[in-house]
Amino acid sequence: MITEIAQIDVKPGSEADFEAAVAKAREAFGRSKGFCGFELHKSIEKPQRYRLMVKWQTLENHTVDFRGSENFTEWRGLVGGFFAAPPDVEHTETVLTSQA
Amino acid sequence: MITEIAQIDVKPGSEADFEAAVAKAREAFGRSKGFCGFELHKSIEKPQRYRLMVKWQTLENHTVDFRGSENFTEWRGLVGGFFAAPPDVEHTETVLTSQA
Repeated sequence: MITEIAQIDVKPGSEADFEAAVAKAREAFGRSKGFCGFELHKSIEKPQRYRLMVKWQTLENHTVDFRGSENFTEWRGLVGGFFAAPPDVEHTETVLTSQA
Repeated sequence: MITEIAQIDVKPGSEADFEAAVAKAREAFGRSKGFCGFELHKSIEKPQRYRLMVKWQTLENHTVDFRGSENFTEWRGLVGGFFAAPPDVEHTETVLTSQA
């Protein structure tokens, strides 16, 4: 499993609408091959900055399957208008964990 | 609960030693007030880039309690020598989740 980390800066004042649009986009993600769940994080220091952390079974489930699908078109249709700039997207593998 | 996201670029060739040092630092985090666990993520696109995602009960558990403690000194003693630059640290709140 890999994590997609999308750093998204939204237009000032659009925060609540953006969050509602991401909630609506749950269905599009839920239909997507290899989707394992997401968390939407809001920055404390930069209140217009979000990070969408999406778990996928494989890298290709995001870069090929999702981006080539109608689910991606639906996602961008819901949230794209709130972006202040193109999202900065990176993928990671979890190499170590620690429990409290 | 909040998430500390520390973006850490390490010196080329030090990846394995850095990961071993983070494993050793589990104890220092485990002793820290408000610590709820961490994940170490390694970037797929930039193999010298890591993100340490640390869950804390409150922002102050990281910024005040941890940074002012001997646990922080121990952490930096273990990993600081591998840093290619000062880490870029941000804090987030989770505003939305979606399960597969």
